[in-house]
Amino acid sequence: MFDFEVSAEMQALLGRYRDFMDREVHALEASAAGRSFSSLEPELAKVRDRARAERLFAPQVPKEHGGLGLSFREHALVSEVLGRSPVGHYVMNCQAPDAGNMEILHLFGTAEQKARYLSPLARGEIRSCFSMTEPENAGSNPTWLSTQAVRDGDSYVIDGHKWFTTSADGATFAVVMAVTQPDAPPYARASMILVPTDTPGFEHVRKISIMGHQGSGWASHSEIRYRACRVPVQNRLGDEGAGFMIAQERLGPGRIHHCMRWMGICERAFELMCQYAAKREVAPGKPLGTRQMVQDFIAESRAEIDAAKLLIHHAAWKIDKQGQYEARNEVSAIKFYAANVLQRVLDRAIQVHGGLGVTDDTPLAAWWVHERAARIYDGPDEVHKSALARRILKQHGLVVKAEG
Amino acid sequence: MFDFEVSAEMQALLGRYRDFMDREVHALEASAAGRSFSSLEPELAKVRDRARAERLFAPQVPKEHGGLGLSFREHALVSEVLGRSPVGHYVMNCQAPDAGNMEILHLFGTAEQKARYLSPLARGEIRSCFSMTEPENAGSNPTWLSTQAVRDGDSYVIDGHKWFTTSADGATFAVVMAVTQPDAPPYARASMILVPTDTPGFEHVRKISIMGHQGSGWASHSEIRYRACRVPVQNRLGDEGAGFMIAQERLGPGRIHHCMRWMGICERAFELMCQYAAKREVAPGKPLGTRQMVQDFIAESRAEIDAAKLLIHHAAWKIDKQGQYEARNEVSAIKFYAANVLQRVLDRAIQVHGGLGVTDDTPLAAWWVHERAARIYDGPDEVHKSALARRILKQHGLVVKAEG
Amino acid sequence: MFDFEVSAEMQALLGRYRDFMDREVHALEASAAGRSFSSLEPELAKVRDRARAERLFAPQVPKEHGGLGLSFREHALVSEVLGRSPVGHYVMNCQAPDAGNMEILHLFGTAEQKARYLSPLARGEIRSCFSMTEPENAGSNPTWLSTQAVRDGDSYVIDGHKWFTTSADGATFAVVMAVTQPDAPPYARASMILVPTDTPGFEHVRKISIMGHQGSGWASHSEIRYRACRVPVQNRLGDEGAGFMIAQERLGPGRIHHCMRWMGICERAFELMCQYAAKREVAPGKPLGTRQMVQDFIAESRAEIDAAKLLIHHAAWKIDKQGQYEARNEVSAIKFYAANVLQRVLDRAIQVHGGLGVTDDTPLAAWWVHERAARIYDGPDEVHKSALARRILKQHGLVVKAEG
Amino acid sequence: MFDFEVSAEMQALLGRYRDFMDREVHALEASAAGRSFSSLEPELAKVRDRARAERLFAPQVPKEHGGLGLSFREHALVSEVLGRSPVGHYVMNCQAPDAGNMEILHLFGTAEQKARYLSPLARGEIRSCFSMTEPENAGSNPTWLSTQAVRDGDSYVIDGHKWFTTSADGATFAVVMAVTQPDAPPYARASMILVPTDTPGFEHVRKISIMGHQGSGWASHSEIRYRACRVPVQNRLGDEGAGFMIAQERLGPGRIHHCMRWMGICERAFELMCQYAAKREVAPGKPLGTRQMVQDFIAESRAEIDAAKLLIHHAAWKIDKQGQYEARNEVSAIKFYAANVLQRVLDRAIQVHGGLGVTDDTPLAAWWVHERAARIYDGPDEVHKSALARRILKQHGLVVKAEG
Repeated sequence: MFDFEVSAEMQALLGRYRDFMDREVHALEASAAGRSFSSLEPELAKVRDRARAERLFAPQVPKEHGGLGLSFREHALVSEVLGRSPVGHYVMNCQAPDAGNMEILHLFGTAEQKARYLSPLARGEIRSCFSMTEPENAGSNPTWLSTQAVRDGDSYVIDGHKWFTTSADGATFAVVMAVTQPDAPPYARASMILVPTDTPGFEHVRKISIMGHQGSGWASHSEIRYRACRVPVQNRLGDEGAGFMIAQERLGPGRIHHCMRWMGICERAFELMCQYAAKREVAPGKPLGTRQMVQDFIAESRAEIDAAKLLIHHAAWKIDKQGQYEARNEVSAIKFYAANVLQRVLDRAIQVHGGLGVTDDTPLAAWWVHERAARIYDGPDEVHKSALARRILKQHGLVVKAEG
Repeated sequence: MFDFEVSAEMQALLGRYRDFMDREVHALEASAAGRSFSSLEPELAKVRDRARAERLFAPQVPKEHGGLGLSFREHALVSEVLGRSPVGHYVMNCQAPDAGNMEILHLFGTAEQKARYLSPLARGEIRSCFSMTEPENAGSNPTWLSTQAVRDGDSYVIDGHKWFTTSADGATFAVVMAVTQPDAPPYARASMILVPTDTPGFEHVRKISIMGHQGSGWASHSEIRYRACRVPVQNRLGDEGAGFMIAQERLGPGRIHHCMRWMGICERAFELMCQYAAKREVAPGKPLGTRQMVQDFIAESRAEIDAAKLLIHHAAWKIDKQGQYEARNEVSAIKFYAANVLQRVLDRAIQVHGGLGVTDDTPLAAWWVHERAARIYDGPDEVHKSALARRILKQHGLVVKAEG
Repeated sequence: MFDFEVSAEMQALLGRYRDFMDREVHALEASAAGRSFSSLEPELAKVRDRARAERLFAPQVPKEHGGLGLSFREHALVSEVLGRSPVGHYVMNCQAPDAGNMEILHLFGTAEQKARYLSPLARGEIRSCFSMTEPENAGSNPTWLSTQAVRDGDSYVIDGHKWFTTSADGATFAVVMAVTQPDAPPYARASMILVPTDTPGFEHVRKISIMGHQGSGWASHSEIRYRACRVPVQNRLGDEGAGFMIAQERLGPGRIHHCMRWMGICERAFELMCQYAAKREVAPGKPLGTRQMVQDFIAESRAEIDAAKLLIHHAAWKIDKQGQYEARNEVSAIKFYAANVLQRVLDRAIQVHGGLGVTDDTPLAAWWVHERAARIYDGPDEVHKSALARRILKQHGLVVKAEG
Repeated sequence: MFDFEVSAEMQALLGRYRDFMDREVHALEASAAGRSFSSLEPELAKVRDRARAERLFAPQVPKEHGGLGLSFREHALVSEVLGRSPVGHYVMNCQAPDAGNMEILHLFGTAEQKARYLSPLARGEIRSCFSMTEPENAGSNPTWLSTQAVRDGDSYVIDGHKWFTTSADGATFAVVMAVTQPDAPPYARASMILVPTDTPGFEHVRKISIMGHQGSGWASHSEIRYRACRVPVQNRLGDEGAGFMIAQERLGPGRIHHCMRWMGICERAFELMCQYAAKREVAPGKPLGTRQMVQDFIAESRAEIDAAKLLIHHAAWKIDKQGQYEARNEVSAIKFYAANVLQRVLDRAIQVHGGLGVTDDTPLAAWWVHERAARIYDGPDEVHKSALARRILKQHGLVVKAEG
């Protein structure tokens, strides 16, 4: 009954990841501060090699594709450890959006698709992107898509406009969500299509400047135009009209891993806050930690991080036991709860650091900048709260439509 | 790894408690609203008889004393179910302060003490009280006690002033915390002494008026003077100077059960909020639940209640596996986290009910009144937060004294 | 430009009120704690006599009716001083609901109505009540009324069901809101009718138990049935169908005074918090005020109370200069902002007092109980927030209906 | 009594500023997004010329130095209008840190200092910086300085280490805070010294990378080493040991203007939020503004911005009437209150914008990044709260030292 034990074997594996992070990844951070991702890639490639050598690379990838084949609940624990550095997931090749793309290629790809797209992804030789959100249509309403893929003989001809296509810069292919059956019911209109980025008509408009940064390579978000972009029908992933079903499949465990990545950030920020509070003096012999307002930050953060982690592990357990559908409420709850804990913990850690907290001398500032979006992407707080409440109200006999 | 399953056997038992609550206890609430506890006692006595008949009485009491002998983690689950009614715990004879007194009598009492005090308590024939807090000394600093018990031959002579001696009205005996070794180190100064309330010198000053209510019987809090109150040395519970050690023993699992009782209140308040939101119309055909501000209340409450419950079960598990000392941080965290969730959930449930929410037509108002103290008793939020933070800072090398 | 000066004359008057409160009203509080309003009435009557003698009685009542004739912005300042005691307004005969009833009688009453109802009210010889809210219909939607007053010759025959008819117990007459023109547009359907409480068919169902208290006399809230309750047509206040217009007139300045009364409570609670923090020791030589968590409460409270007071004075100024209609946004904002400040300040003051804070040894607990409704009556937070936002959005071109 | 009127003349002037901002400054924003300050300077120089031509330049500068000579309360209103754009203050030559430096040069400078430093600053021909904060010593404790200026004949020889020397990149001179009388009482140890940045020993270590940006020119923050940096004694501003007194003089009205600049940001963010909410559809025909969670953001923001503005104007009025010393509490309160309102309003505006909110397509993201420091610079929230509370507690008889 309510067993919170982590197996000795898993503890050992986590220890190896922690050790690797300390030794190889956190050591990079100081020199990485303020540099572009592209300029860091050669160094990161070496760290990836060492991760391969130590058999830590691609923890979530099935063994048949060269990974460690961890279950998704095991990988959640690894994700927390990797989250402690902004590049932790990238180093281990379990970064978004590639991890999600690998997962759906594994589940829904044809042998040919796996060979061409999944294998090099799993080996970390190429990168990919996921092209779903459109500037003209609210992302909170996923069925509202204007991009169309029109069947023309053995091809699809794709026309549309996307943005927040994360990591498109340098990606080999995009997974594009496009309407293929405009007359079907809303959730059966779209298909997922694999589009190599060198296809004519795949037009990279710009890297979107986000909080002052255009970013580069994996660490960037692009606006893309698809103009009469033609790919063979065989590039469709799964069935016609199955786009949303596959997207759901991609999102569920993905949210768990996202949330656990945030928990890694939280734990690191918490540790930095406590370390600084223990040593930084506000008056001779009076470190910050003697101040109750700082103690309040520490205590609230500890309770909230623990609460968020338990909620996430519980949601993961429920997905495991009863499936994604039954765990919808739990997944909605962790999405907004954990993202808000993340923002508050970062805020407190920065505040305790004072001026130092806004500099790039710690990773806190970068997280403050880049994780503000955590409360927005994959569904804003408000959408998840409303969805959760409406499902609960339905159990009490009230049906409220999302369209309000 | 992270198993959140509750055994089928336990599920069945909880089902029987839920059924009993619905059938026998919630049915009482409407007629109980606004009545004094004393006037309710005859009705409650009948419900207790039915609980005995259905073998649900005294779930936490060891079998040898006539109870169900549930483990403390099992009892935590029962406590949640009972918490759904203000009289749930009383009906089952696991109400504070008697439950705590039974526990320490069981652990530390002599055979004679058990026969005279524990047995009738366990059978629900008498009531008791716990006399520790003093008006002159901050309760947040437990070693700061003025009440003295001076050894005089085979007796202790107790002099002191106490308040918030819960349930003293009608109690047969008090467990009194008094200094017996004034020269010992702070945590070894006090002893616990059993004082029958008819002892000369036990002076019941007043039932303290709390939020407009003096209360009566079990549901009251008294100010007591001990004036040369003489009891035999055999009335000491445990060793001389062991008062704090025993109090700790009493508090640890007690906090788990308190917190789970609050979770019962939360779940009931949440249910009332959802039911009302689903049916009360703010305009024809527009129930409250169609309003996003209400949905926000529902979603936040659901996430927070789940988070608090998981934190509590985790703390209980840790006490079980590693002992109270190792679980100090977790117990501090749940004390303030759960008490704040309780207050927020009640606040939202009242707000959704509008005018009805402040009336006694639902139990929400009574809880708003009586549970404001949850953030104060057994250590105010601020004391627990500071203690938690100081223990964490100590792991980072900073020692901060409570005395600041 | 932005002058925050209070005239010397007004300062002097406020000084006299403060002095009277200290001397005559706060002195009563200790003995009043926990007693019913009815049992206090004889003592309060004597204090009222002294207020009359010192020419402080009925500050808001026009001089022609025997009051001081203060402007509504002057009275706002007085209201703050009186709010420092739960009975301050009553003592000065400017308590709700009588003050509002006097105001509308003054503005809309016939000479006969003034002679019969307003004069004795203004002299404090009788009390009245205001009967608008109905249990079956959401009070947040004021046009949704079921109570009807059907014209029958020279009479109205009233049938309906009301609750939260404050101070009905012992009132001489009620101002009843009833539909007289069911076919008119929503805001022109109701009229206000003066109903002596000894009229046959005026049925006092119960004093509603609120947070455990039925209350009595002025300090109570009743459920009323009107069963074929017949009054002469001359008892209508103002025109047929003018009920809402008059209610608006009653509410606008009334909200300012309510809010300033809350500010009086806030200032008193703040003072009690600071006094206690300055003297109560948590360890020898360490008063609570040395603790930063307490300092945080004090600083946040000070800023919030000042902010709320300035918002209220600004709203009053705008009503004065531009009329109630133009000040709608400001009035909505202070209603929810000030009510929330009130709750937070009370919460912090109680928390600082620890156990003492929930007892009736200070007025904090009574305010905690009775002012929870501040966020509900005269429009719940959510209704005011939504109304304010919708008016702002309209300026940006979006029309959203209240009915959502 | 409580007059919130702004004079017609001032209204007209504010109208001219608003018009200029719309016409000349906001028009720049789209092209400025993501560009470095240095690359923008030529365009900004042209806008400055137009501001001069329209007699709007240097509103706070005394007429004798070529400015408009507005009083500090008038300038507060202008500051709000300028705050609506990140470059508004720069365009008008009232940006920090130059504005503060001009003020103290005006108040304390010798004729020679004014001619050499103030005049070209006031004309906008040069820029300056203020060098006070040190990395080794907590900025929250302003007397804790290690930088020393040792008298050597007719020179001071300065040695020390500073950071967060804002706008040092490209500045002509620095105002350096250095200890000149190490044996004096804490507040009389330091002097302010004018140090041309081409003085040997003025070593520009780095532009500190802040939230991923090193910035450039005016929009940057530097780390500086002073190594045997020698300047003539005539470069001292004011008396020996008067550094803190002058810094206080600089900070008081400066905080008012800072806070009003934040209010300009708030108003702009609020406007963007409302505009977006009014037009962006979450479902066909359902703009965001129909959602109550968005309405909640709008209503809370409106109330908080109004509250903060009134608090600031009140503090300014009190400084004006009673001096900075008497207004210490009010200034502390607005510093933390307004900075927190700023952060919350930006947070909500971003949230309403969804993905767009984190991009640089609006100024919201840049403010999110750069104004996180508002709760830290010029005294972190916690320092102001504690200081305010301690002053209040002193009035209640408790003296608590800052050193706690």
